[in-house]
Amino acid sequence: MTLPFGYRYASSYAGIRKVEKEDLALIVSDGSATCAGVFTQNRVQAAPVRLCRANLKESGGIARAILINAGNANCATRTGDRVALTTSRAAAKALKVPVSQVLPTSTGVIGVELNPKLITNALPGLASSLSADGFEKVSRAIMTTDTRPKTSTAEVAIGKGVVRIAGMTKGSGMIMPMMATTLGFVMTDAAISAPQLRSMLREAAEESYNRLSVDGDTSTNDSLLLMANGASGVTVGPRDRGLFMDALVHLCQELAREIARDGEGARKLVTIQVNGTRSGDEAARIARTIANSPLVKTAIGGSDPNWGRILCAAGNAGVIFDPNVTDVYMQGVRVCRNGLAANYNEPALIEKLNESEVSVRVVIHGDGTGEARFWTCDFTEGYIQINGSYRT
Amino acid sequence: MTLPFGYRYASSYAGIRKVEKEDLALIVSDGSATCAGVFTQNRVQAAPVRLCRANLKESGGIARAILINAGNANCATRTGDRVALTTSRAAAKALKVPVSQVLPTSTGVIGVELNPKLITNALPGLASSLSADGFEKVSRAIMTTDTRPKTSTAEVAIGKGVVRIAGMTKGSGMIMPMMATTLGFVMTDAAISAPQLRSMLREAAEESYNRLSVDGDTSTNDSLLLMANGASGVTVGPRDRGLFMDALVHLCQELAREIARDGEGARKLVTIQVNGTRSGDEAARIARTIANSPLVKTAIGGSDPNWGRILCAAGNAGVIFDPNVTDVYMQGVRVCRNGLAANYNEPALIEKLNESEVSVRVVIHGDGTGEARFWTCDFTEGYIQINGSYRT
Repeated sequence: MTLPFGYRYASSYAGIRKVEKEDLALIVSDGSATCAGVFTQNRVQAAPVRLCRANLKESGGIARAILINAGNANCATRTGDRVALTTSRAAAKALKVPVSQVLPTSTGVIGVELNPKLITNALPGLASSLSADGFEKVSRAIMTTDTRPKTSTAEVAIGKGVVRIAGMTKGSGMIMPMMATTLGFVMTDAAISAPQLRSMLREAAEESYNRLSVDGDTSTNDSLLLMANGASGVTVGPRDRGLFMDALVHLCQELAREIARDGEGARKLVTIQVNGTRSGDEAARIARTIANSPLVKTAIGGSDPNWGRILCAAGNAGVIFDPNVTDVYMQGVRVCRNGLAANYNEPALIEKLNESEVSVRVVIHGDGTGEARFWTCDFTEGYIQINGSYRT
Repeated sequence: MTLPFGYRYASSYAGIRKVEKEDLALIVSDGSATCAGVFTQNRVQAAPVRLCRANLKESGGIARAILINAGNANCATRTGDRVALTTSRAAAKALKVPVSQVLPTSTGVIGVELNPKLITNALPGLASSLSADGFEKVSRAIMTTDTRPKTSTAEVAIGKGVVRIAGMTKGSGMIMPMMATTLGFVMTDAAISAPQLRSMLREAAEESYNRLSVDGDTSTNDSLLLMANGASGVTVGPRDRGLFMDALVHLCQELAREIARDGEGARKLVTIQVNGTRSGDEAARIARTIANSPLVKTAIGGSDPNWGRILCAAGNAGVIFDPNVTDVYMQGVRVCRNGLAANYNEPALIEKLNESEVSVRVVIHGDGTGEARFWTCDFTEGYIQINGSYRT
């Protein structure tokens, strides 16, 4: 599997985090790329999110570079806008590209002033160390409480040739993206027009990042960016859209799943599937409510086939459905049939629930054809320990 | 403080729980009482909730007895409706009252068949042991994971004399009541018409139980019942409504606060106050979102004045407000001013956050006059431990 052509990557430690662990990164396209972004729907938005939006608008969806820092969200800070602009300008200068084609993103603590000098001083060195094989190193530099980097790659053979896609993302708390998650960067060497790219990203995010929750909190900094630089020489036209989208959605789902799997304190990746609602939106609402139920998530953590909590959470989703025609499955075993306890081998199921991947399926029998899939993780003491002492 | 006149109470161990701890209780009015109830808004509703509603409708808001069992929610069970009816009938027979004037309520595990014989066999003995001073004993019998009973009493002097109110309630997980909470029983010896009583209970619940969340999960069994038997000989008329409501709201808020304080694993009672939204409903939505944020609740558990998480949660409430004119206070200390870090003494504040009651206040400066108060608790390892192994 090769990375998309025409991108280079660099990362270094700029002193933003207290611990000496890389915290600054660049992703750069050698040539001009189209770019689309989806961002947090939180009313409180970090300065880099605002500048990203403005730059994408000003450039008409063209970008050359993504500037990323971890360790500080540059949100709710007095100097936020200035810091985002100053550091983007420094990156533009070091890379010799227009400032509107630099997209700044930040993740970390909220409400602490970010010293721009740490970034501007590091940028010349960072720019000179860009390399085509820095992808994996950058995927580590953007981590906060993540325990491992999260990447995914794909190759798509479309009519005129092969294009490549590569993505990286980070978790792992304050995660319930609405339109996007914390940070995600996807690069392709396909040539795709900016409006096309926007619609593709929106669609892919809806089926991946927007179906993900670690703790039900939507961050102030969520940004998912997709760049297409055309370095493959292959254009994705209307006829190729389906093939390309399949790969893009799959890749984004892989990234989203990795975030759930590595949720703060998580031991298990939980996939929730809901079928039989009147619409896909209703299915997603039920799946989301189950995914955000602390009682469901702690039960799964304890390998307890407590389907009552699943049915109860479904009932809280604000969706009209009949519990009397509703089945619940865990690990493929029907634990609830028509709203009542089903016959199943409980010790065998508990054994299965000890696995690192757990599936929950809610099936409503009737005329409805709505369905949705959603990813989350179990809820453990680890989450409490991480978040009871994150900042102080 | 004396209990309301004209009520008797009894409790015993009927074998519904595995551990030998009282699990069956009766609250009986000596004479006919008006009665109002508010119930869960979950789509999945337990059989006793359905029968309670039906009985109140059939009797026109008249009741003589409340039958309560802990240890089994009688929800999502094959025999649910039959068990609720059979046990209510047995209570009616033992008490010699019409069956529509018996209100059954259950709390405990979902999806496990409840053996009605355990209850019907115990009822004659229970009925013969009714006593005016069994109030406190019943408040213990209805507990599930509660660590202590939750009661509150009041005396109200209105024009024509004194009336008494007494309430008991239970927590302490699956708690985010919508219209009512898990179980709450409030008795008064005032005489109040059934329609009046309904409107009073709705109003009181809105300001108390509906402003409470332990874990964001609304139970299938939430029931709050208010009985008024007139044994004081004092009627609450339109002119006395204000005085009586003040006492009733206060009493219900005390019960709600006790539930929050004793939330599963909780070490701290958290009161969230929001001011300055366009409406009270918007303020309540922001307060609720903060109260349900695991990140806010774990930070408070860790005595971390992490106001960024509070502001972020407020931004997720789906309410339009300007973070740039928003202040956040913790323990009365302004930690965020106009959306930015305020100057405050952090070590001193951390000390204050170690107390057993924590206040969070969000003030949006502008024209809005909406306000709301909400109660929750901190989020600790204890919650995970309790819920990772509740059933198995």
